[in-house]
Amino acid sequence: MATALCPGSFDPPTNGHIDVIERASRYFDSVVVAVIANPSKEPLFSLEQRSDMLRDALTHVDNVEIASFDGLLVDFARDRDLGVVVKGLRAISDFEYELQMAQMNSNLSPGLDTMFMTAKPEWAFLSSSLVKEVARYGGSIDGLVPPGVAKALQGAFPTP
Amino acid sequence: MATALCPGSFDPPTNGHIDVIERASRYFDSVVVAVIANPSKEPLFSLEQRSDMLRDALTHVDNVEIASFDGLLVDFARDRDLGVVVKGLRAISDFEYELQMAQMNSNLSPGLDTMFMTAKPEWAFLSSSLVKEVARYGGSIDGLVPPGVAKALQGAFPTP
Amino acid sequence: MATALCPGSFDPPTNGHIDVIERASRYFDSVVVAVIANPSKEPLFSLEQRSDMLRDALTHVDNVEIASFDGLLVDFARDRDLGVVVKGLRAISDFEYELQMAQMNSNLSPGLDTMFMTAKPEWAFLSSSLVKEVARYGGSIDGLVPPGVAKALQGAFPTP
Amino acid sequence: MATALCPGSFDPPTNGHIDVIERASRYFDSVVVAVIANPSKEPLFSLEQRSDMLRDALTHVDNVEIASFDGLLVDFARDRDLGVVVKGLRAISDFEYELQMAQMNSNLSPGLDTMFMTAKPEWAFLSSSLVKEVARYGGSIDGLVPPGVAKALQGAFPTP
Amino acid sequence: MATALCPGSFDPPTNGHIDVIERASRYFDSVVVAVIANPSKEPLFSLEQRSDMLRDALTHVDNVEIASFDGLLVDFARDRDLGVVVKGLRAISDFEYELQMAQMNSNLSPGLDTMFMTAKPEWAFLSSSLVKEVARYGGSIDGLVPPGVAKALQGAFPTP
Amino acid sequence: MATALCPGSFDPPTNGHIDVIERASRYFDSVVVAVIANPSKEPLFSLEQRSDMLRDALTHVDNVEIASFDGLLVDFARDRDLGVVVKGLRAISDFEYELQMAQMNSNLSPGLDTMFMTAKPEWAFLSSSLVKEVARYGGSIDGLVPPGVAKALQGAFPTP
Repeated sequence: MATALCPGSFDPPTNGHIDVIERASRYFDSVVVAVIANPSKEPLFSLEQRSDMLRDALTHVDNVEIASFDGLLVDFARDRDLGVVVKGLRAISDFEYELQMAQMNSNLSPGLDTMFMTAKPEWAFLSSSLVKEVARYGGSIDGLVPPGVAKALQGAFPTP
Repeated sequence: MATALCPGSFDPPTNGHIDVIERASRYFDSVVVAVIANPSKEPLFSLEQRSDMLRDALTHVDNVEIASFDGLLVDFARDRDLGVVVKGLRAISDFEYELQMAQMNSNLSPGLDTMFMTAKPEWAFLSSSLVKEVARYGGSIDGLVPPGVAKALQGAFPTP
Repeated sequence: MATALCPGSFDPPTNGHIDVIERASRYFDSVVVAVIANPSKEPLFSLEQRSDMLRDALTHVDNVEIASFDGLLVDFARDRDLGVVVKGLRAISDFEYELQMAQMNSNLSPGLDTMFMTAKPEWAFLSSSLVKEVARYGGSIDGLVPPGVAKALQGAFPTP
Repeated sequence: MATALCPGSFDPPTNGHIDVIERASRYFDSVVVAVIANPSKEPLFSLEQRSDMLRDALTHVDNVEIASFDGLLVDFARDRDLGVVVKGLRAISDFEYELQMAQMNSNLSPGLDTMFMTAKPEWAFLSSSLVKEVARYGGSIDGLVPPGVAKALQGAFPTP
Repeated sequence: MATALCPGSFDPPTNGHIDVIERASRYFDSVVVAVIANPSKEPLFSLEQRSDMLRDALTHVDNVEIASFDGLLVDFARDRDLGVVVKGLRAISDFEYELQMAQMNSNLSPGLDTMFMTAKPEWAFLSSSLVKEVARYGGSIDGLVPPGVAKALQGAFPTP
Repeated sequence: MATALCPGSFDPPTNGHIDVIERASRYFDSVVVAVIANPSKEPLFSLEQRSDMLRDALTHVDNVEIASFDGLLVDFARDRDLGVVVKGLRAISDFEYELQMAQMNSNLSPGLDTMFMTAKPEWAFLSSSLVKEVARYGGSIDGLVPPGVAKALQGAFPTP
């Protein structure tokens, strides 16, 4: 009865994130999406906003829970007794960073495993920061983020 | 109730393979190890030998089955109604090739997903072909492969 | 009045190749597709077959010519007075190999430049050899290659 | 009659930039160098200085125009009716980032293509930020940047 | 009679750093560890603290000297008449950055060479910044850094 | 008093190989160039020819010895009591393969270290196999290989 732990800043969640979480929910009994409360880079959206965006975009997925944490992922995993982290991978640079984190986490908490799912090719270029940059300059982000996120981004960056 | 599909040539299985299969067996209800019957490179060990080596090295894992297939992985997955492939990753070049295969498989059989687990750092350098090369020249492969594989390799490459 | 030189084995051409040639034809006055007559790996299709496949798939592109060469690309480029090679790129490993070839070509023929176009994300996993492997085992390659190529592959690998 | 669009911060332009623009000017009818007015990192040189440096270093190239833009590159490309972006590539990490940008741009403005040229091997290590760091500590940047840029850097970082 | 020059911020030194310096000391007559006095990112520990940490962790290595420098590494190398830099490599991204620096240094000071040693696989995930992040949140860094560094980190980030 | 061990097939040696050996000879008391007698790919030149080519190209380097070995590098290193392998690196793919070999060697013979030197940028594209391919088709390899190698390649591939 394994539960997948999907951590991230989700500032904001993109369709790439949602796709990975949806697919993880098929292979695991349940999925805990763990929003990093205070990412090292000051987030555009509050923890509450980011959690709500995820909740809205995942209403059709039954076995998913939105949680949040502050501090080390390994502590959150231990508290919740979760043994496997599931992360989406887009590109090589992702892979290196995620591999480093996976190995550090496994070192801090022996037995904590990490599994990777690749993003769909058509979303390989998507990232939260690129989406924010496009939205800031009024570019169209339709089809790249869930509708609720698109609306929130338009609110955050009103067309001049 | 997901079953993980772990395909490979396993010519021979290394401790890196065994480690990935063991760890996958913790997060999935069961694991089907699918040995490629006729890999493109002529194998050193027969399909029966490779299957036996895997069976021997995995006796302590209850929820694992050793199977084999010829042809396309997607056909085997469809026949067995398996939805998720689990592969070990060592390095960047692995990642690129595995990503290419994952995307081709997803294109051939929409809904067939691939998840990746990273090898333990101490086995990041291990590959079946490197193990064979070392054994061929009488180098020590203890600790790199299961005991039964070490014995089989010594039989295949007797010390001069 | 620049002409782009698009070299390759095209054994067989894929939709990824056709896409790159089509797009190159928009930015250059004309495109010379140069089929490598005798690639280092024995081709499945004859030079004539590969040339015909390209011709059929590119009938809608006016400014493209199908040619072939034996030997060094730089000699062909010099004979035809072509100054810029255009290659498609899929992945990192492609990039490294193509970069090596581009630099060797520029060393052999100072002034011969290479430009790269990236494959569309949905074709990033496509390669001639993967397409052949799938066809060999009866997998569906519809949508991955031009119709004429699909037919030729079915002829080369008849369903058992 | 294609025009190449060469965007960048050019803070300052290096010989690597100039080399790519020069070579692009041979294969395209004209080249529009588009200076990013307000890069995300506060530039050392003003937009006017960066534009003048490019103009000075490219006086020998007839078919080049120095322009600037604020906001999204796709909007600038649409306004000017330009269909192909040309970027220099140095290394793998460049490639990944540039690929991500190319795919986002193609998503935002279907039909906007990106082509890559590789830097000459002897300039593969060059970047604007490394040049600034060297100049800041009084290292010699002769031969790495156009003479006008070298002078401007000496002005910006006077020898103590 | 060659002396190896091992530069770095060492903020703080990790077991990966110490391992590379130890191993370099076997193949060179002596090793000069050159601490970057003012790294571009504001360091957590003062130059004196970082130098002391290195000195403490390397008392068992006879032929090593702890020095520091401000400005360009090539100037320090020239002043001390040192001809070869030795750097540890962890991953691909390290490699690219280090290669860029090595080529810039060789350009600034022809004859200044760089040699690379790979980190032990079990320390491939270690970095000073990751160690600091873990310590900041009270995670265990035992076995990742020398004992003196562990103590200093606990001082810098007292458990709440 | 360290001796560097530079192994390779050297079929044939290129200027990139010679450059790395020359530079290694400055930082080590001596260099043993160890020619792999029977590389996995059938060599173009005999062991004697490859050894002679290296000897000719390195007459100006005093502290270098040309040797050869069959079997595992670690056995040769142990027989000769050599503790450090020095290899040239060109590109990322080199790096991954060399890293794998270095870690396997360190596993087979704890204490056997590997150091890497990067090729000069202008030789980053050079490889023995590419040189042979160019020579086979009559391309100019002057400046890419030592004069004696150029002559031998012209003998091996006479202009038609």
